[in-house]
Amino acid sequence: MKHLGRFQEESRRHNLGTVLRHVHMAGPISRSELAERMGLNRSTIMGLTAELTAAGLVREELPRDTGRAGRPSLLVRPESDRVYVLAFDVRVDRLVACRVGLGGEILERREAARRRAGADLDDVVDVLAGFGRELYRGGDAICVGLGAAYCGMIRPGDGMVRFGPDMGWVDQAFGTELGDRLGLGLPVAVGNEAHLGAVAEHVRGVGVGHQNLVYLHGDVGVGGGIIVGGKLLDGDGGYGCELGHMIVNPYDGRPCGCGSRGCLEAEVGEQALLEAAGRSGELVGREGIRTVVAAAADGDEAAAEALRRIGDWLGIGVANLINLFNPGMIVFGGMLQDIYPGAADQVHRRVEANVLVISRERVSLRTAALGDDATLIGAAELAFAEVLASPLETLARGTLSPLA
Amino acid sequence: MKHLGRFQEESRRHNLGTVLRHVHMAGPISRSELAERMGLNRSTIMGLTAELTAAGLVREELPRDTGRAGRPSLLVRPESDRVYVLAFDVRVDRLVACRVGLGGEILERREAARRRAGADLDDVVDVLAGFGRELYRGGDAICVGLGAAYCGMIRPGDGMVRFGPDMGWVDQAFGTELGDRLGLGLPVAVGNEAHLGAVAEHVRGVGVGHQNLVYLHGDVGVGGGIIVGGKLLDGDGGYGCELGHMIVNPYDGRPCGCGSRGCLEAEVGEQALLEAAGRSGELVGREGIRTVVAAAADGDEAAAEALRRIGDWLGIGVANLINLFNPGMIVFGGMLQDIYPGAADQVHRRVEANVLVISRERVSLRTAALGDDATLIGAAELAFAEVLASPLETLARGTLSPLA
Repeated sequence: MKHLGRFQEESRRHNLGTVLRHVHMAGPISRSELAERMGLNRSTIMGLTAELTAAGLVREELPRDTGRAGRPSLLVRPESDRVYVLAFDVRVDRLVACRVGLGGEILERREAARRRAGADLDDVVDVLAGFGRELYRGGDAICVGLGAAYCGMIRPGDGMVRFGPDMGWVDQAFGTELGDRLGLGLPVAVGNEAHLGAVAEHVRGVGVGHQNLVYLHGDVGVGGGIIVGGKLLDGDGGYGCELGHMIVNPYDGRPCGCGSRGCLEAEVGEQALLEAAGRSGELVGREGIRTVVAAAADGDEAAAEALRRIGDWLGIGVANLINLFNPGMIVFGGMLQDIYPGAADQVHRRVEANVLVISRERVSLRTAALGDDATLIGAAELAFAEVLASPLETLARGTLSPLA
Repeated sequence: MKHLGRFQEESRRHNLGTVLRHVHMAGPISRSELAERMGLNRSTIMGLTAELTAAGLVREELPRDTGRAGRPSLLVRPESDRVYVLAFDVRVDRLVACRVGLGGEILERREAARRRAGADLDDVVDVLAGFGRELYRGGDAICVGLGAAYCGMIRPGDGMVRFGPDMGWVDQAFGTELGDRLGLGLPVAVGNEAHLGAVAEHVRGVGVGHQNLVYLHGDVGVGGGIIVGGKLLDGDGGYGCELGHMIVNPYDGRPCGCGSRGCLEAEVGEQALLEAAGRSGELVGREGIRTVVAAAADGDEAAAEALRRIGDWLGIGVANLINLFNPGMIVFGGMLQDIYPGAADQVHRRVEANVLVISRERVSLRTAALGDDATLIGAAELAFAEVLASPLETLARGTLSPLA
């Protein structure tokens, strides 16, 4: 019976986590809806929600007038003010941090512009740890996780930045340092920004319901996050999805930050667009890109032609990805949200010309629904992973050490 | 307790399937090794192997002299002669069928050359069903599944060939027809040849132990099978992994059978190699390719240069795949087994130039271990899937109808 006892224990933990995940993702949800989604009877659900309520993770309340006769099913709500994570986002042009309540709402945020290059680990961690201190809430509230998105290649185990081309970082212990400086006794889970953007769009954005989805994230370069069978493609070391380094132009390709030439990110990145539009000496970053997009909309032929040229290269990349992944959706995030509308004709043309008819029967092409916060929301989801896997055990890990 | 009873039933079925899978994959395996691999105690394992033995799926026997003192652990062997599947393989140049015993051994096979084009569904099914009749064994033996590999895009549910470029098939009900003609009362599970080759190399070939693996299969064109996190990447409709239609040459690419230009398969396929070697009027197929490879080895400079040129395009494709999938292994199968050795330098050069250093830290490039039978063995594994998932239920489905 020992074996059976262990099973029952695991099964209970699994079911508690699943209930909490539904509440976290769906927001207020009735017990009867939970019972239906999980295929369990209502008394089992009642037992589970009672445990989560006692732990202070959810609360149950009568719905407002349902307009129907009979006893209404109680609504289960996440305790968003009490149970939260801190999420951090190291973007190309800014540092962002926020407190996110269980249920996914951003409760409070801090942002600072950052210099594009030359930022060292200390500077970045300094700013983010300061934000963390401001966003932290003690007392009755409990921080259940820390997550960060970084624009580079991240070692999953410890959040080491193996390669951060934008800042010139190689093997910088970002996750460990940030965790130490926050001093909350919690590790910081770090992920690549495009991976996390893909997860966010998959669970809370335009890709909800899609089991196979490719997310392209543009900033200075182009990153990617690919959902295969409902899960992020990580590969052997966690470094998969580097779609920005797919070679699309093998002959006279533009030089790429990775040392190669003709990569997708070299052909469709910020610099390529600004140069093609004859505006490389002017504004850079999102502002620069939006200026080109606005000019094209106003009839500037050079700007429109630049968008079309970018669109053709982007289309080759997208066509390759559809042939490889047979996804239900392609999502354009980061600065590609701005570029895509003016480049969509070229992208569609490439998809029609270069993708097998059967592989593109059901694919749709969309811009991100979560806007620039996709990566930040993905970092918050990474931080929530543990409490959703083992709700009571994660809470029971004891009172957090006060901030240093 | 009803819930618990159902759980115990499911758990027992799951454990029976897992034991049978270990025996099927590992060959004769001791009870103690099974206990260790499954994390169960020896008495539980004994109960499971007793059930499988009673059903006639395995038998237990004393090992030969172990050279060690003490009571030896019984060996569990698959009942390979009694429990079998029929596997079929529609290749570009031939039709192959075999009877494969539980445990994976090919017990008997039939082959016929086939005309390259113009074969209609009836002809193909005729030959394969004839082979099936010759390979079928009744009496005490039991056929537990039917599987087929086909060189085209396959709808997973019913084995419909949506697109078979090589034979010009569009929406041909291959799986259903073959099943009807065999008349065994079993459906035929059909898969794309490269998908099945990847699975075979993953479970029985050079890729054993790799959770992330890319298999490139060359025949007239180039197909692919990609293992992500231990599972075949299928995509929304089951049509993923079409790596042969990745555009590698966007400027003056060769025309491709899919209607596009510059696809990987157009640049590295049979026709490209034969033309580059100045031998397009001579032998075709594997013979043609082997002639070029042999000529290059004998110092024919045109043939060697053709292999190098193919290798450069192949290298671009491989580099893109490593950046995307961060795999532990790339496997070259089909005619790429012949081409790769003479093209390896160019492929490695491209990998070094175009793959991020971190993404290629641990990848190795290999030729298929199962040779040309990878696809056939993959079809057999597809046929075994059901008995490995629910051993007793699959057997209990009753005596098979005799062949018509």
